[in-house]
Amino acid sequence: MADKLVIFDTTLRDGEQSPGASMTRDEKLRIARQLERLKVDVIEAGFAASSNGDFECIKAIAEVIKDSTVCSLARASDRDIARAAEALKPANSGRLHLFLATSPLHMEKKLRMTPDQVFEQSKLAVRFARNLIADIEFSAEDAYRSDPDFLCRVFEAVINEGATTINVPDTVGYAIPELYGNFIKDLRERIPNSDKAVWSVHCHNDLGMAVANSLAGVKIGGARQVECTINGLGERAGNCSLEEIVMAVKTRKDYFGLDLGIDTKHIVAASRLVSQTTGFVVQPNKAVVGANAFAHASGIHQDGVLKARDTYEIMRAEDVGWSANKIVMGKLSGRNAFKLRLQELGVTMDSEAEINNAFIKFKDLADRKSEIFDEDILALVSEENVAQSHDRYGFVSLVQHSETGERPHAKVVMTVDGKEVTGESDGNGPVDASLKAIETHVKSGADMVLYSVNAISGSTESQGEVTVRLQNSGRVVNGVGADPDIVVASAKAYLSALNKLSSQAERVAAQG
Amino acid sequence: MADKLVIFDTTLRDGEQSPGASMTRDEKLRIARQLERLKVDVIEAGFAASSNGDFECIKAIAEVIKDSTVCSLARASDRDIARAAEALKPANSGRLHLFLATSPLHMEKKLRMTPDQVFEQSKLAVRFARNLIADIEFSAEDAYRSDPDFLCRVFEAVINEGATTINVPDTVGYAIPELYGNFIKDLRERIPNSDKAVWSVHCHNDLGMAVANSLAGVKIGGARQVECTINGLGERAGNCSLEEIVMAVKTRKDYFGLDLGIDTKHIVAASRLVSQTTGFVVQPNKAVVGANAFAHASGIHQDGVLKARDTYEIMRAEDVGWSANKIVMGKLSGRNAFKLRLQELGVTMDSEAEINNAFIKFKDLADRKSEIFDEDILALVSEENVAQSHDRYGFVSLVQHSETGERPHAKVVMTVDGKEVTGESDGNGPVDASLKAIETHVKSGADMVLYSVNAISGSTESQGEVTVRLQNSGRVVNGVGADPDIVVASAKAYLSALNKLSSQAERVAAQG
Repeated sequence: MADKLVIFDTTLRDGEQSPGASMTRDEKLRIARQLERLKVDVIEAGFAASSNGDFECIKAIAEVIKDSTVCSLARASDRDIARAAEALKPANSGRLHLFLATSPLHMEKKLRMTPDQVFEQSKLAVRFARNLIADIEFSAEDAYRSDPDFLCRVFEAVINEGATTINVPDTVGYAIPELYGNFIKDLRERIPNSDKAVWSVHCHNDLGMAVANSLAGVKIGGARQVECTINGLGERAGNCSLEEIVMAVKTRKDYFGLDLGIDTKHIVAASRLVSQTTGFVVQPNKAVVGANAFAHASGIHQDGVLKARDTYEIMRAEDVGWSANKIVMGKLSGRNAFKLRLQELGVTMDSEAEINNAFIKFKDLADRKSEIFDEDILALVSEENVAQSHDRYGFVSLVQHSETGERPHAKVVMTVDGKEVTGESDGNGPVDASLKAIETHVKSGADMVLYSVNAISGSTESQGEVTVRLQNSGRVVNGVGADPDIVVASAKAYLSALNKLSSQAERVAAQG
Repeated sequence: MADKLVIFDTTLRDGEQSPGASMTRDEKLRIARQLERLKVDVIEAGFAASSNGDFECIKAIAEVIKDSTVCSLARASDRDIARAAEALKPANSGRLHLFLATSPLHMEKKLRMTPDQVFEQSKLAVRFARNLIADIEFSAEDAYRSDPDFLCRVFEAVINEGATTINVPDTVGYAIPELYGNFIKDLRERIPNSDKAVWSVHCHNDLGMAVANSLAGVKIGGARQVECTINGLGERAGNCSLEEIVMAVKTRKDYFGLDLGIDTKHIVAASRLVSQTTGFVVQPNKAVVGANAFAHASGIHQDGVLKARDTYEIMRAEDVGWSANKIVMGKLSGRNAFKLRLQELGVTMDSEAEINNAFIKFKDLADRKSEIFDEDILALVSEENVAQSHDRYGFVSLVQHSETGERPHAKVVMTVDGKEVTGESDGNGPVDASLKAIETHVKSGADMVLYSVNAISGSTESQGEVTVRLQNSGRVVNGVGADPDIVVASAKAYLSALNKLSSQAERVAAQG
């Protein structure tokens, strides 16, 4: 029997820490369900002690996820650990993930602790955690820049205390495959009780080598867990990407000889869901999930001869879930067909009322757009879920006009705390005018740091999906809105971002 | 003295082969100039025999580029080679890059040749090329899936015939760093005259390991040339990315011990130019050139404490040209300031008339937008260059209106072969209505396969830059348009794509 490689997804924790990628509870729940469908072994759902919002998210995910282990990050302190264990109580299978930095730079500048203090605190933290939950992961933050002798001391001690997984992060993305693989190999050889724990890799992509480094940690170092995120989402250049790790291990099984639990058919859907939720686009030349990743899947014939597929492709597009997305719905589709499609797309709604609500929106869209693709449905329900009843701002209607030689003008009707108000403004363009019309009431003072539109499906009739990223007093939020009218989509996205700004809870920062 | 690593950029050849990334002559010239500014050692400018257009591009680039070697791809046939040598005649330093497939699959299915025939043709081709140009690179297409014994025979023979660079592509992106490095090491050890040539790596990113594979080819295999593209542009998941290779070799000089000629300060500008030209977005979590790649460069403060920079960053954003872009122009800026800024941005215009034309557009933009950023100027001149005098379709003016509950409507005035015509249509949104209004005259029958908008700078006042990708009869083109009014930008982008469709020359396909 081949060894199994554990896939630990941290899209909802390390991925979400990426500036602008913060998600609501419902967004996180939907992604967690998709990760469970992918058969991810461990879902890191958040960092319970960082905010009440994160605590509630982890708890909600622990309640609904049955097949994957649900994990919370925690600093190596009793308070953090207790809070994480509390959030994980409803889980079928829960894991505590403790971290403490071990590199000289981090110990001195961030923690202001001596190595001996770090050693002691690591031991005590695992000892405390062990009484709450049996599945304990310990991460030495910035491990790859740490002194190996010190790391050996810490890791041996925490394994003795009961840590069952040992994670060796390359926190700053500085590693080289050969060096990183041997770094882990040496640790495992030197630590007498190393066989009592599963070894784990966690790599960042600052030099473009997160995947290769992780795989060297597995092949050379003997690690059997990879920490990764959908689309490689994460701070700076991001984390190791789940889809690349999984497809490399599968495609080169001749070399790795490892089994995976992942159901790869759900990869593309997961990628789209994360991209739509966070507004982080996936570039067309992204491996596995980029629009061009498979020549034939993009519907484009290479000029000249059509070549035998094996000549240029080492994976099959179907295996990662391209092409699945061909069923088209329209105005004649009934409520049952819609409900079934939602199920197939993995969207779970909490009540019949919610389904009804979404169905009304669906019919409204079908009146304006002849073919409804899966992406349209996902956009619609994602917008539906973003629009919470407790939202401060809501979209009602919009009129805009632009004409070469004149200044574009817009009038927006919106709700503020349930009360309808109208704003008018001109602007550089109809979008600018509409957002300024909204600001006549909101006066948020927020800076727009990103504005982007992607057509949801490739046709002139497609809906536009707009992402707006706002920054205010150090907080960064994304708002997403979809509509066949790009100006309306922009106004919706802007209002959604304003709602997030007005409700976002404070958090403390964590690093992996 | 440390060894030098040769950086061979193939953005204009292998990158351009990516479906939708085709570029005009002027676009290619501008990118070539930026590559020269980067101090790239070799610029692969195209594939001369593939079309007259490509031949002319290579010739034009060979005429203006002085500091970098200019290279043309050629199949291993006398006709191709003669054509490439002809295009390279004006070059200060020219290189012929011959390729022929050596893997069983490619020889049988694509070439329909026996190994002996491939061996003979390789020899004869290099022998023929050697009389035209001294600098000869030979690529064995799909080398990594070829029989090593056969590769040894071919490489030894072509080196004997005078090939000065030997390239070992992983054409399908199947390699693993350790295996690929050892593959090249073995070849070099077994081939008696291997020291007479520079060895080169060319990796694709299908499993996310192009950079790590290339670097293993260098470190383990002893290769001293890396073939790469800006932003990793290229077919499927793309090629090895120049910015990642360069920054990895620089940041980990302790490990690689290699010198590079690259002036890294121009990396971000090169990335933007390629992205704006092709319409291929760079995802925010892309290493080195993504908007989030450097935490502090995105202007975003992490929640909580601001940490010492070394704690999380291994490179400096300034070193790759982030932050350089702060000079803002406005309506009071004069023609000289504009001209100077163009020079600083590396934009070369062929005549004073062209500068005047661009300046008029600049003033027009400044009337509508209070602050003009470098991105605005680049968008403006890129649009300027796209709008050639011989274009079939031109934009004149646009009126559009949308209102919740009514069907959006647009009227577009445009030129067709110099004659002004007006089209009107309604649509799902104002953009859809405008494009349909254009189609009332054009009737292109093209499918839109991509539509995206990015704000050129992050503010509500920013211009929108729209990319439209059209497909018709197997041809794929991108059109780009910029305007503060997103609907106008969309119409311009659509017309630009239609112009490319109507002029694009047929080409034969090549692979690297």
